[in-house]
Amino acid sequence: MANMISGGLHGLLDERQVDTPVARVVRALSGHGAVSAAQIARTTGLARSTVSTILADLKRSSLVVEVETRSPGIGRPALAHSLNPEAGTCLGVHLGRNEIRVVLADVAHSVLADIAIPLESNYRPEKATRIAKQAIDNIYKEHSLPYSGLLGVGFAVSAPITPSGKIMRGSQLPGWQGVDLRATFEPVLQKPIFADNESNCAALAEMMWGAAAGFDNFVLFKLDLGIGGAIVANGKVLTGVAGTAGEFGHMVLDPRGDLCSCGNRGCLELYCSGMAILGVAERRLSRSLGMAEFIKIAQGGDVGFQRLLEDAAEAAGRGLATVGTIINPGLFVISGSLATAGELIMAPIRSTYARHTLVKPGDGEGANPQFVTGKFLENDNCMGAVGLVLRHHGRLS
Amino acid sequence: MANMISGGLHGLLDERQVDTPVARVVRALSGHGAVSAAQIARTTGLARSTVSTILADLKRSSLVVEVETRSPGIGRPALAHSLNPEAGTCLGVHLGRNEIRVVLADVAHSVLADIAIPLESNYRPEKATRIAKQAIDNIYKEHSLPYSGLLGVGFAVSAPITPSGKIMRGSQLPGWQGVDLRATFEPVLQKPIFADNESNCAALAEMMWGAAAGFDNFVLFKLDLGIGGAIVANGKVLTGVAGTAGEFGHMVLDPRGDLCSCGNRGCLELYCSGMAILGVAERRLSRSLGMAEFIKIAQGGDVGFQRLLEDAAEAAGRGLATVGTIINPGLFVISGSLATAGELIMAPIRSTYARHTLVKPGDGEGANPQFVTGKFLENDNCMGAVGLVLRHHGRLS
Repeated sequence: MANMISGGLHGLLDERQVDTPVARVVRALSGHGAVSAAQIARTTGLARSTVSTILADLKRSSLVVEVETRSPGIGRPALAHSLNPEAGTCLGVHLGRNEIRVVLADVAHSVLADIAIPLESNYRPEKATRIAKQAIDNIYKEHSLPYSGLLGVGFAVSAPITPSGKIMRGSQLPGWQGVDLRATFEPVLQKPIFADNESNCAALAEMMWGAAAGFDNFVLFKLDLGIGGAIVANGKVLTGVAGTAGEFGHMVLDPRGDLCSCGNRGCLELYCSGMAILGVAERRLSRSLGMAEFIKIAQGGDVGFQRLLEDAAEAAGRGLATVGTIINPGLFVISGSLATAGELIMAPIRSTYARHTLVKPGDGEGANPQFVTGKFLENDNCMGAVGLVLRHHGRLS
Repeated sequence: MANMISGGLHGLLDERQVDTPVARVVRALSGHGAVSAAQIARTTGLARSTVSTILADLKRSSLVVEVETRSPGIGRPALAHSLNPEAGTCLGVHLGRNEIRVVLADVAHSVLADIAIPLESNYRPEKATRIAKQAIDNIYKEHSLPYSGLLGVGFAVSAPITPSGKIMRGSQLPGWQGVDLRATFEPVLQKPIFADNESNCAALAEMMWGAAAGFDNFVLFKLDLGIGGAIVANGKVLTGVAGTAGEFGHMVLDPRGDLCSCGNRGCLELYCSGMAILGVAERRLSRSLGMAEFIKIAQGGDVGFQRLLEDAAEAAGRGLATVGTIINPGLFVISGSLATAGELIMAPIRSTYARHTLVKPGDGEGANPQFVTGKFLENDNCMGAVGLVLRHHGRLS
């Protein structure tokens, strides 16, 4: 039965294949998890009565189940609908600088497994394929799940990716430039391949389950070892014609500044990335240092390390002020390992933003965008890669 | 008959009121002008057979007519469908710094009238209402058209506008700050009011009929007396939470630069607006000077004036390089009066862009965005205001 259903799901999830009312309801469930019939009607634009009929049919064929959700506060649990968790599984894979991480989830949006495999930082595509295949086989065996129920594999990649799925120059994966992700992974995994830049995946995760839930327009700014980001407009992650939309780290702050790895001078990344901060901190301590330890020392009261965070946040705030001036979002999600420093980083970001952006706090309607830290600071990339499959975004074909 | 039809059209054009297949077909025709049945099927997502049945019904009720379109080259004229020009009219009004301009068009996208009324630069809302009402009454009388067939009035405004239709601080309309456009014009005009910033309107005009036809993702950059712009993502003009998306003129190039009217320092507008250029040129000639004359002198070989254009274009190119890095569009439409200077302005924009943006010409797929000048350099605002009504964008209610 699970097989038959997942066979049906495959087609229904792909909007290029079918755009019937049934498919629209199934995609609303896949994209949003447990939702009420009223929410489905809003999302799909279908009449409430049509949605009810379709849900009844889908329940009869075991593709959909009823679940109870309890919102905070008093009142009886609300009735919601979800895809049957047995109807299929999704995989999210993060190809990071020095690890591969794999998350398994069912189509009801439950995470079933989450494993990380550390690697040397120059690992190659052939090795990645072998490692990923082995990890995936182990996961399916351990959980006694049929591989046939796997709907697709989403890849969150530490690199800009072209719309056709090739890795671009300037990536954190040296040796992967020009690699075609579908040609690399599809023959081995034998499943539909989805892929996007890791920051775009992080934005998808925050939008589906995290700090940006309910927001159709927001900006994710990733302060990690490198700087990344994503722009969500009208509910969709902007990719751009070359796949590089949201690369905030390469906004030029000073055209006479230091040379950046991208070939320009004075890029934002040179002033606020974790790499830049740790470089100074390590010279000061004459030893190597991880971001978690750096932040602990700063939070412990080291004024020099606090100043490094503050300077980085001010540079970030200047970049975000420009992003705010030209995109004017209502929400900024600050993500990445530096966001774990809390107010040490958030306060100077907010004040520098207000100083340099066009719309000032006194300007009324929409004048005060929210600044929040991400919910999935630790595994947003991988969760978003699962989201790629659930929403059928970034399908490579 | 025309009355009955336009009564029906009103409801069908508003997607908040009705989302039936018939309404979707009518909106495709209203938004795109003369289109084939196949194009309507693509735009609406409806089956080709459904579209044919609906078109037949609409033709019987005289809401739709068949028209012949001839594409360049040999072959017989293609059959297309359009809303019946007698089914209704739309007005586009530009509230500019020192003129009000009114364009009248029918729902088949033909311009029937285009008049400009010069005004002193400090004109007030009360005067604007009186002047606009008078001009509109004259136009309808002259063309013997029934005012009852007017579907709505679109306003393109030389100011940022909040989503609810209030004019923001920093506008080119001094004395209009906080003015509610609907409250001002609806009681007098007695028709639905639509409004957007003039650059957003210009982008709509270029997308519907101009240099961006066929593009769902592009950036319009307006080099005029002031600097404006618009971002189109997935076929929609981004407005932003406060209505200021696309305000490229206020990206900060130098946080220690001169004070800008917006309250920040070193905004792009200070380095490349027509106002800034003419300021220098007028001091040099010790007399006042219009943009057309300035460009004529530069094109005539004046190396000083050419240098002013080049410096402005370089500043613009730096700003656009940042826009390119974070939005990564495939097309930039350069608009506004400075764009009439042609290669004197376009060449340095392109080269400075390539120098400072992330994706370089050699980077392959999508690496070479197009730079084109706008098609409606002279009346894009007003044409876009007509587009607001035809597409039912920016409805104030």
